[in-house]
Amino acid sequence: MNVSAIKQMEQYAREHEEVISLSQGIPSVFSDIHIRTSVQDAIMNNLVDKYSDPQGMLILRQKICETLEQQAMAYAPDEIIVTTGAVEAMVTALLSVTSPTDQVIVLTPTYSAFHRAAETARVKVLSLQLKEGENWTVDIELLRKKLSSRTKAIILCNPNNPTGTIYKKSELREIAELAAEHNVFLIIDEVYSRMLFNDKKWYSPAQDARLKKQVIRIESFSKNYALSGWRIGFLHADRSVIERMLPIHDALVNCAPVISQYAALAAYERGDAVITGHMAEYKEKRRVMGDYLTQLTSRISFTYPVGTYFFFPRIRGVSNTAALSLDILQKVGLAVVPGEEFGPGGEGHIRLCFGREIAAIHVGMERLLSYFRTYA
Amino acid sequence: MNVSAIKQMEQYAREHEEVISLSQGIPSVFSDIHIRTSVQDAIMNNLVDKYSDPQGMLILRQKICETLEQQAMAYAPDEIIVTTGAVEAMVTALLSVTSPTDQVIVLTPTYSAFHRAAETARVKVLSLQLKEGENWTVDIELLRKKLSSRTKAIILCNPNNPTGTIYKKSELREIAELAAEHNVFLIIDEVYSRMLFNDKKWYSPAQDARLKKQVIRIESFSKNYALSGWRIGFLHADRSVIERMLPIHDALVNCAPVISQYAALAAYERGDAVITGHMAEYKEKRRVMGDYLTQLTSRISFTYPVGTYFFFPRIRGVSNTAALSLDILQKVGLAVVPGEEFGPGGEGHIRLCFGREIAAIHVGMERLLSYFRTYA
Repeated sequence: MNVSAIKQMEQYAREHEEVISLSQGIPSVFSDIHIRTSVQDAIMNNLVDKYSDPQGMLILRQKICETLEQQAMAYAPDEIIVTTGAVEAMVTALLSVTSPTDQVIVLTPTYSAFHRAAETARVKVLSLQLKEGENWTVDIELLRKKLSSRTKAIILCNPNNPTGTIYKKSELREIAELAAEHNVFLIIDEVYSRMLFNDKKWYSPAQDARLKKQVIRIESFSKNYALSGWRIGFLHADRSVIERMLPIHDALVNCAPVISQYAALAAYERGDAVITGHMAEYKEKRRVMGDYLTQLTSRISFTYPVGTYFFFPRIRGVSNTAALSLDILQKVGLAVVPGEEFGPGGEGHIRLCFGREIAAIHVGMERLLSYFRTYA
Repeated sequence: MNVSAIKQMEQYAREHEEVISLSQGIPSVFSDIHIRTSVQDAIMNNLVDKYSDPQGMLILRQKICETLEQQAMAYAPDEIIVTTGAVEAMVTALLSVTSPTDQVIVLTPTYSAFHRAAETARVKVLSLQLKEGENWTVDIELLRKKLSSRTKAIILCNPNNPTGTIYKKSELREIAELAAEHNVFLIIDEVYSRMLFNDKKWYSPAQDARLKKQVIRIESFSKNYALSGWRIGFLHADRSVIERMLPIHDALVNCAPVISQYAALAAYERGDAVITGHMAEYKEKRRVMGDYLTQLTSRISFTYPVGTYFFFPRIRGVSNTAALSLDILQKVGLAVVPGEEFGPGGEGHIRLCFGREIAAIHVGMERLLSYFRTYA
C-alpha cells in the first residue's frame, strides 16, 4: 500500500512553491473565533491534559445526540463514539464487524480512504461501480448479485466524494433493506452532509429506526467546521454494535484528543452560523470554478456538484487520467487528483477541489485552461 | 474483546465520587505553561486548523531527531512518524510488519494495551513470562524456543509497566541479537524512558546502529510532559520500515492532531526543565507510597520501582487478584488494577499508580491499610 495519490500530489505541491494545488480537500477557511477562545479557556482551566472516557466526553456525546435529534436521528449518548476523525471511525467500524476472510462492498467512485481502511483492516474490497450515465446511481440488481455470505458491510459516502452527487431516498432505502435482508452493515460516511448546494430534503438511513441495527453512520468536524487538523469526528450505531466497537477504538487511539473534543463542543455551541458562513463562501467558489469549466466544454463534460466541494469533470477521449494529471502538473504546475484514485468508474475523470483559497482557484483554473489550449 | 480492567476501574471511580483511584496511569501534574501559551499562539496564528503532512510536521520531526541524538540515537526526520499517542504507534507497527496468521511474542507481565493492539491487528500473541524471582528478567533460552517462522515481532516495554523494572543492557542486546538472527522486529515501548529514579546509564537497542533494521522504538509525550489527553507520540525505525508503516498510519488517523504536534514542539523547547520538575514530585510520591507499603510487609512483598510511576506488590497467599481488587473496591472504595490484566506472571499482584494527586495517594493507601487490617 502506498500513500494516496491525493497526498502525493499535495506533498509535491507543498515542496514546490510554484505549484497550485486543487487536490486535497482542505477547507480554505479557518476555525471560528468562538471555537478558539473556548479551547483556550479549556486549556487554562486544566481540562485538556488528561485522557477522557475512551468513548468521548459525556457532555460532548450529549450535545451530539441533541444535534442528531434535530436531524431526526434518535441516538443515546452511549450509542456514540467520539473518534480521531472520520478515518479512524471507518477503520474501527471495519475491524469490529469483519473477520480477515470477509468482504466489504464499496460503491465507487468514492473516497479512496475506504479502500485503504479495508486494506488496513485486512478485509477484501469488492467495488460496485455506480452508473455514471444515470447521475451516479446504484444498480440494485448488481449490488444484490455481489452480496454473499462473506459480505459483512456495504460502504458508501453521501454526499459522494468525488462525484458531488447525493443518493436518492428511495435508493438508500433499497440499499438499506438489502443490507437488512442479508444481515450486513451499511456504513455511511456523511462528512459532507452539511455541505449541500440545494434545498432538497436530506435523508439518511440513520433516520429510520427500523434500520438502526444495520446502520453505522460516520461524521466529522473537519469539513463542516474547518477543523481538519484537529482530527475529530464521531460515529453512531445501535448500542449492541457500539459495544463491539469501543474496545477497538480504545486499542487504536485510547480516546480522541481531548482539546479537539472541546473544539467540537464549541463548534456546536456556535451552531449553524459557522456552517452558513462557510457555505456562502463555498457557493461563490463553486460558481467561479464552474464558470472556468464551462469554457472547456469542448474538452470536458461536467455537472455542478449538489454536495461536497469537488467538481469531477470527465475528460473527453482520455481514459488514463493518472498520466494526464502528471502531465498537467509538469506542464502548468497545477495539482489535481486522477479519477482512478477513487476506484472503478473514476477513470477518465479528474477531481478539482473548490474548497481552497479563491486566488488558488483563479490561478489554478487559468492554468488548466492554458493546459488544454496549449498541450492537449 | 472488552475495554481493559484498568479503564473499567477508572470508569467506576469516575462515576462514584467516593472512590479513590490509583488505577489508570494518568499524571496528576498538568502541562507546562510554556506549552499552553505556545499552543494558544499557534491557534491564533491559524497554524492548527489544517491537516499536516501525514508523517508529522517536518519542524517537529527535526526536533525529535535532535532530541534522539542527545540520547545517542541516530535517526533522520524521514525515519520518524508522529502518531496519535503510543497506542496508535503500536497498532501501526503491528499492522505493518505482520500478516493475519503471524505471531508476536510479548514479554509479560506488561502493558495490557500490547495484547489489545495485537488482537486489533489480528495477529496471535504468545506471552513469555519474565522471571519474577530474578527481578523480572527474561529467560533467553525460553525466548529462543518460542521463536518460529511465524514470529514477526518481539514486544517489550522499558522501563516496564507494571513491574517498574528496567532491562539490563546485556539482556536487551541478547534479545535484539536473537531478533536479528530470526529476522523478526523488536518493538520497544519506551514511554517511561525519562521517568527513572536512579542514575543508571540508559540503554536502548535503538542506540545501536547495527540493530537499526530490527528495532521499532515508540515514545510518547503523555507521561514525560503530562500530555496524555493530547494524544501525541511518535515512533522511529529504519527508513525501509517507515515506508511500510506510513500508509497504515495515514489510513488509521490521517495525521496526528496538529495542535498536539505544536504542544510537543513546545515541550521540547522547554526541554528537561519540565521533566525535572515532574520527577521531583514523583520521587516524593514514590517515597510516600513506599512508606505505606512498608507497613504491610506481613501481607505483601514489593520492591521500589526503578522507572515508571507504578508499584506492583505481590499479595501473599492470593492468586486471584481480580477478585481481591473487586473486594478492595467494594469494601474500602479504592480502585487498583489486578495483576492478571498485565498477562501471565501478573497473577497475585496488584498495580498501584503514584502518579496521582498526593491527597489521593494518602487517602487511597490508608484505605488499603484498613482493608488488610479489617477484611483480609
